[in-house]
Amino acid sequence: MSELLPNFLAGRWQTGNGPGIPLRDPVLGDELVRVDSGGLDLAAGFAFARERGGAALRALSYRERGALLMAVVKVLQAKRDGYGEISTRNSGTVKGDTAVDVDGAIYTVGVYAKLGAELGDRHALLDGEAERLGHGASFQSQHVLTPTRGVALFINAFNFPAWGLWEKAAPALLSGVPVIVKPATATAWLTQRMVADVVAAGVLPEGALSIVCGSSKGLLDQLQPFDVVSFTGSAQTAVLIRSHAAVTERSVRVNIEADSLNSALLLPGQGEAALDLLAKEVAREMTVKSGQKCTAIRRVFVPESQYAQAAAAISARLQKTTVGDPRNEAVRMGALVNREQKDAVLAGLAELRKEAEVLFDRSAQFLLDADPALSCCVAPTLLGVRTAQASEQAQRIHDVEVFGPVATLLPYRDMPQALALVRRGQGSLVVSLYGSDAPALAAAAAELADSHGRVHVISPDVAAGQTGHGNVMPQSLHGGPGRAGGGEELGGRRGLNFYHRRCAIQASAGVLDALQAHITKP
Amino acid sequence: MSELLPNFLAGRWQTGNGPGIPLRDPVLGDELVRVDSGGLDLAAGFAFARERGGAALRALSYRERGALLMAVVKVLQAKRDGYGEISTRNSGTVKGDTAVDVDGAIYTVGVYAKLGAELGDRHALLDGEAERLGHGASFQSQHVLTPTRGVALFINAFNFPAWGLWEKAAPALLSGVPVIVKPATATAWLTQRMVADVVAAGVLPEGALSIVCGSSKGLLDQLQPFDVVSFTGSAQTAVLIRSHAAVTERSVRVNIEADSLNSALLLPGQGEAALDLLAKEVAREMTVKSGQKCTAIRRVFVPESQYAQAAAAISARLQKTTVGDPRNEAVRMGALVNREQKDAVLAGLAELRKEAEVLFDRSAQFLLDADPALSCCVAPTLLGVRTAQASEQAQRIHDVEVFGPVATLLPYRDMPQALALVRRGQGSLVVSLYGSDAPALAAAAAELADSHGRVHVISPDVAAGQTGHGNVMPQSLHGGPGRAGGGEELGGRRGLNFYHRRCAIQASAGVLDALQAHITKP
Repeated sequence: MSELLPNFLAGRWQTGNGPGIPLRDPVLGDELVRVDSGGLDLAAGFAFARERGGAALRALSYRERGALLMAVVKVLQAKRDGYGEISTRNSGTVKGDTAVDVDGAIYTVGVYAKLGAELGDRHALLDGEAERLGHGASFQSQHVLTPTRGVALFINAFNFPAWGLWEKAAPALLSGVPVIVKPATATAWLTQRMVADVVAAGVLPEGALSIVCGSSKGLLDQLQPFDVVSFTGSAQTAVLIRSHAAVTERSVRVNIEADSLNSALLLPGQGEAALDLLAKEVAREMTVKSGQKCTAIRRVFVPESQYAQAAAAISARLQKTTVGDPRNEAVRMGALVNREQKDAVLAGLAELRKEAEVLFDRSAQFLLDADPALSCCVAPTLLGVRTAQASEQAQRIHDVEVFGPVATLLPYRDMPQALALVRRGQGSLVVSLYGSDAPALAAAAAELADSHGRVHVISPDVAAGQTGHGNVMPQSLHGGPGRAGGGEELGGRRGLNFYHRRCAIQASAGVLDALQAHITKP
Repeated sequence: MSELLPNFLAGRWQTGNGPGIPLRDPVLGDELVRVDSGGLDLAAGFAFARERGGAALRALSYRERGALLMAVVKVLQAKRDGYGEISTRNSGTVKGDTAVDVDGAIYTVGVYAKLGAELGDRHALLDGEAERLGHGASFQSQHVLTPTRGVALFINAFNFPAWGLWEKAAPALLSGVPVIVKPATATAWLTQRMVADVVAAGVLPEGALSIVCGSSKGLLDQLQPFDVVSFTGSAQTAVLIRSHAAVTERSVRVNIEADSLNSALLLPGQGEAALDLLAKEVAREMTVKSGQKCTAIRRVFVPESQYAQAAAAISARLQKTTVGDPRNEAVRMGALVNREQKDAVLAGLAELRKEAEVLFDRSAQFLLDADPALSCCVAPTLLGVRTAQASEQAQRIHDVEVFGPVATLLPYRDMPQALALVRRGQGSLVVSLYGSDAPALAAAAAELADSHGRVHVISPDVAAGQTGHGNVMPQSLHGGPGRAGGGEELGGRRGLNFYHRRCAIQASAGVLDALQAHITKP
């Protein structure tokens, strides 16, 4: 049997008492390691994190906690090669995809480490300036943000075992809030290894970082009023979390990133340059991490007159995507994460094909070094509908998220219709806009801002410097309203809000002066 | 039978098709009016508000919407006397208590009207400044806040029929979001009258303001992903709202203000002056609106050595509180809102008396012009426990909110114990601190900030100018973590956040310039 990975809880490594759930290589099918959370004393583990970890972190200033994050960056950088190996084996990803996850994680922690230095030697954050209340100058209101005195529980998705931990842990730890992470079982190995490395390096206070691998059973039951829970994953699981008594009865703050039908939109009246930028971005988004990104483009909107041209341009790029075992240097796209995901993608494709036709499908071609029956490789598929009317009549295309290398090309008649079709996603993480007319791009961005967490505008002047539709930059908000879950993560300093409580301190000017001195004292 | 009040929905007055629920005078028992929401086409009403009201409001700038609010202020001011009469009859409140509700409402709308003028002629708000992404200067991230394209549903509490509507409606309307209010049935008359006056004055666009009186059945079912719901009331109802599919499945944003065991804390080592300020505030909080304020002081913490003195000082002030029919000029405190509340207060008192003794009880004295059996008048009662140990051992006192003129005096040993006892409320709306040492007050405020929405510090220099423990100033956050519901309202510009969506626009500097021009164009 493979190694049973231990959990780190209550300041010590603890092995579950069950048989363990195996993690597999999605290309070769091998069992790699096992995880198990059976029999853990969760109450003791949560209390240890909440009390020991919380007190230790809150005793530090933002500057000091930023320094802890910088120490984490160094640990992760030193162990980076090992993470690549685990990612290849357990996630079936090519090198570039591993980098999106692992280097993305390290970069994000680094950004928050620097933010800690900027926030400096203080123990709470002022929120705005003092404002006079009533007629005199003496009585004032000053809002402050203080770290919540609880734990942050992360229930994470399989697609980003590295970044998914650290994009949440960096803001939490910088805020002074201890972290307990429950990675998705399929790819828990990399998360567990990173936690193990950071624990072994001894760079964080006891109780600041814990990990439970395997079943999430009982975790939510542990949450108390000042704890927070952040979930990334399916809308169905999101419903279970939001319905739990921790949230409904104990006011535990919850952040959800759920699935999303993200769009790319080529503005009307664009020439070949803009269309090429769109085709390049769509093909990249379809294939990076085999399309297993919450932010990936699922719906591609182009003017009716450019439908055929767009289909050809995207297909031409997909044509170059070799699929197979990521250990083969010629392979550009690896596997889906497991059999369950492969089945779900194939089922979703079948659903979409009830409304759309296949414009490009590479599945007839050979997989490189991968058995079509055994491996979880799925080739990229571009779907499409031929008319603006069909785009409007479609239901599933605007509703069924296929979490793999699949997108649908949708022609539109005019901008009002295009904007309405984009909105059919009912709230998404990202929309990208393509064009060269700044006022038109700005107008479309303003129009779509309320239904998206991010609008990514690709104009020719930033063709080289733009950061990618699907890449989550820590400086920008990550999340989206409605179907996307309504969550808010990252966004630089905004990412700390979730881990802080806002309070209005109403007092005399003298007491507020003393308060400023108090929160900045060493 | 009394008048059946119509509902205002889909731009017209509509009478429910049921027999109606009677609203009564809590002093005399008379039936005043009836409300009924039976048979309304809620789907059409919500759609009308969402589409017509939303589009009309979003077409205006913040400055223009601020001007609408100023017009509302003028309507309410002109009709103020009529509101006083309804309040006296339906809420059983003395003039001062009516003013807290009605004048508090008008003041709050006025503050948001002025904020609209400050925000000016723009259609979206910039959130922070543009930040460079990547190495070049050309690609940047700018966060913006845009009004959510949905309705704001308010399910309100009985204790503030006027302020409860407007403290929520002012930020919503200023944000460009149409409002549908469902006031608590017991006191819905005043809310309905205010809406009727504003509708009759024609100062708001069609669909901007609607009201449904009576049963809330079916209201939550109407909510769609970009709608928001704000609830003030019991923790039990809060659970129902949070568990509804609108919230759990459709990501409808929810704000909850639930009950709360607010505290007053006399710091150690204070003389008579601070103790007098505490006694004055406690007596006021117990009796204003007969203690029916979410923010009222329920637990009073004093050093063990000052327990007897505090009990005497508070009792001396309560001694002056004459109770009875508010139409009698000699009456200082009116009735509870209805029989159900009276029964709940008496039951709660009986619960607390299992752990506390009665220090002051005026119930043996005559009620002025009110029948003890028929009216819903309840005299103020001060409870207490004698030792710091008993304060710690008490369970109900830290958990059972008696929503009436009742508070419990609790002695403490030292500051660490006092702070821990305050925290036993598991998250409250307000704590007030009394003392003269600015650093000590500041340290206590910083310590309690994370478990309270507001810390109100009363030092001798602001004895005259302080705005009151229980008064909610629109400049300051109203809400509290944990048991208090986790909500955030008001706080000046912060109050707009709930009605806006945050989005990161990633684009070239040129597109971001065009965006700024776009959102500020007339």
